[in-house]
Amino acid sequence: MRLSRYFLPTLRETPKEAEIVSHRLMLRAGLIRQEAAGIYAWLPLGLRVLERVCAIVREEQNRSGAIEILMPTIQSADLWRESGRYEAYGKEMLRIKDRHDRDILYGPTAEEVVTEIFRASARSYKDLPKNLYQISWKFRDEVRPRFGTMRSREFLMKDAYSFDLDQAGARHAYNKMFVAYLRTFAAMGLRAIPMRADTGPIGGDLSHEFIILAQTGESEVFCDRAYLDFEIPAVNVDFDDVAGLQGTVDAWTSHYAATDEMHDASVFAEVPEEARMSARGIEVGHIFYFGTKYSEPMKAVVTGPDGKEQPVHMGSYGIGPSRLVPAIIEASHDEAGIIWPDSVAPFDVALINLKVGDAAVDAACAEIEGDLQAAGISLLYDDRDDRPGAKFATADLIGLPWQVIVGPKSLADGKVELKRRATGERELIAPVDLVSRLKRV
Amino acid sequence: MRLSRYFLPTLRETPKEAEIVSHRLMLRAGLIRQEAAGIYAWLPLGLRVLERVCAIVREEQNRSGAIEILMPTIQSADLWRESGRYEAYGKEMLRIKDRHDRDILYGPTAEEVVTEIFRASARSYKDLPKNLYQISWKFRDEVRPRFGTMRSREFLMKDAYSFDLDQAGARHAYNKMFVAYLRTFAAMGLRAIPMRADTGPIGGDLSHEFIILAQTGESEVFCDRAYLDFEIPAVNVDFDDVAGLQGTVDAWTSHYAATDEMHDASVFAEVPEEARMSARGIEVGHIFYFGTKYSEPMKAVVTGPDGKEQPVHMGSYGIGPSRLVPAIIEASHDEAGIIWPDSVAPFDVALINLKVGDAAVDAACAEIEGDLQAAGISLLYDDRDDRPGAKFATADLIGLPWQVIVGPKSLADGKVELKRRATGERELIAPVDLVSRLKRV
Repeated sequence: MRLSRYFLPTLRETPKEAEIVSHRLMLRAGLIRQEAAGIYAWLPLGLRVLERVCAIVREEQNRSGAIEILMPTIQSADLWRESGRYEAYGKEMLRIKDRHDRDILYGPTAEEVVTEIFRASARSYKDLPKNLYQISWKFRDEVRPRFGTMRSREFLMKDAYSFDLDQAGARHAYNKMFVAYLRTFAAMGLRAIPMRADTGPIGGDLSHEFIILAQTGESEVFCDRAYLDFEIPAVNVDFDDVAGLQGTVDAWTSHYAATDEMHDASVFAEVPEEARMSARGIEVGHIFYFGTKYSEPMKAVVTGPDGKEQPVHMGSYGIGPSRLVPAIIEASHDEAGIIWPDSVAPFDVALINLKVGDAAVDAACAEIEGDLQAAGISLLYDDRDDRPGAKFATADLIGLPWQVIVGPKSLADGKVELKRRATGERELIAPVDLVSRLKRV
Repeated sequence: MRLSRYFLPTLRETPKEAEIVSHRLMLRAGLIRQEAAGIYAWLPLGLRVLERVCAIVREEQNRSGAIEILMPTIQSADLWRESGRYEAYGKEMLRIKDRHDRDILYGPTAEEVVTEIFRASARSYKDLPKNLYQISWKFRDEVRPRFGTMRSREFLMKDAYSFDLDQAGARHAYNKMFVAYLRTFAAMGLRAIPMRADTGPIGGDLSHEFIILAQTGESEVFCDRAYLDFEIPAVNVDFDDVAGLQGTVDAWTSHYAATDEMHDASVFAEVPEEARMSARGIEVGHIFYFGTKYSEPMKAVVTGPDGKEQPVHMGSYGIGPSRLVPAIIEASHDEAGIIWPDSVAPFDVALINLKVGDAAVDAACAEIEGDLQAAGISLLYDDRDDRPGAKFATADLIGLPWQVIVGPKSLADGKVELKRRATGERELIAPVDLVSRLKRV
């Protein structure tokens, strides 16, 4: 993509309304634009990151056996009356009347809808287990939306819902998501720590939040430092191995880790002092087991092996991709701007032409552009007629993992400069060697 | 994907509420489920088709130089007051009050929002041309939603918005979309005919609808039969070639073609009788040039080469992916079910195991499954313990392009059966030859 044809409205000034660094950088780097309180448009560069985050989420959900569907954003209030949540849910639910004066709402979550979908066709325990997920926009009318897309009113959520015959099956479904979540966040360059959590308006018996540590976290968290070195389950993890998954989950819940609400200072005091860690955390995922809370009132039943009807055991599992984007930035930036992990970067390479109009430099850039594209390496080519300093500043701000800098001086020696954004390391390299060098990482 | 682990709630009965064949088949084949009047959930198989339709739309939009963004579904009423459309837009707009009693709405379209995004950063004619598009959910509170996702209240729309310095530039932007649309629909196996259209609530001077012919079309259309044989612009069409694109558009608008509203019987009578065609049509795309209708009241201005500020010229361009899915079915089905064109099929192959539990058949199926997956051919493997007749019926109903049928009898001769869904042609083939045979098409 050539920057002269792209849409990248970066800002020089730091927007005053942005309190935290990720919000500032998302606005300055032209990732998002606020359209109303807590409501954002995703600009081209931001959308590319969001899509890559979603691709990782999707890959790990699919690997675990979850099946993707897509439920509507607008839901019927009647379904929420069935579950008893319509009155119980507070002002965060955006209640709407349609032209025929029927009560509808913008879904803040989808337990009711997915239970309706499941009950419409499931008849027997042979239809189980199932885990249906979607990646879709939700709305929660936060009284004070803030921190950009970290706590916005319209937000993207991956929400999965598991259906099992009994508690043991549901526990395995829970463990599958637990392991999938560990892999998901690690793939984005994040270390997420599962912490026992309160179940809130979803309800249920068992719940973990996945928290990444960041100075700007919304809540204080307390955990054992040991978690920082735990191994992430491998790509070939067997999601059908009941005991194996339980072992992994047991290990990842064997040490102290708690959010504010669940913190028990006296238990924490038993953690060796050098291992005790209290920090600010950002919640990036939340999983729940809630048994028959929805299946009973909504009559989502199947016939068991004994021929008797029984309500299914359910869980729900959320990840917020539109919150993960700022969370990744909180975890990975410096004074000059964003430092995208390779796996979620909007483009792999910033190609910087230091002298647009110089025939040799233009030709070298065009050739590099073609070579990288042919090798499947994505790039944003800064072909604008602008000062080198402005181009360097933009490249650092938007944080693509690599910068390829092409100027007349080094080019006269048959070289271009390759800079790694994260470390600042620079090397001179012949253009013809770029692809193999970039693929080596 | 193995059917025993999938979620494919097919229906044996024909749902009574479905008036047209695509709606019946989408419900019966388990593609969608109605959640409220005119509001649908997309089940796994349906979502896969929808995603493939979107992928084609996206590919052609990108090829033409349009840049993807994502605007929020919830918009501020204030923006619509700026353009003057808040009061003008009828009851189809879903008007909402948030918890602070502010007027918001579920976007039926996004001219206002995109104009706001553009004006916030564009300063000069050098920032032009631009075409920003999104693929996102819209809501129009139809008084009588019907025909399933053909006319639903919540629907998916690709909406692109072009910004140019003057009318000539805007005309070229319009022509780019015109040509991209021809390619888009052709890639889905559809012949769409552009017809001069009324501009409706979008406003403007120039507008074409892209109509496919189908017995169940909502409106009557009149056109010259010649369009059925017109050539589709090639993949290497040069979108920067102003005269070339104008030539293509001129050719595609040189013959008579009009929707109901624009039909002129006396002009139509001049078409040679054998070329005159009147039929039912389904609108699958709609493009508009409307000049400064939004940029003037909303002050989306740039400095021209003469140093003077001027409002930009705009157009908007819609395609409805959630309407294209039923449109494709209307154009491609038979008594037994759907016949997906290869380019949008949810899976390439239905692999049918005729005797689950037979060691040889199970092993052959597992090997074929591995071979096809390794070759990048997607398949849905019917590994359920069910009668062959039921499996054949399901395979025909869901309409995957190929069926690979594995039974003990032909397998004893080292063969499996390969059936092409569209033609019913069958051949016996050695499993080892399947990949090269399927890749040959």
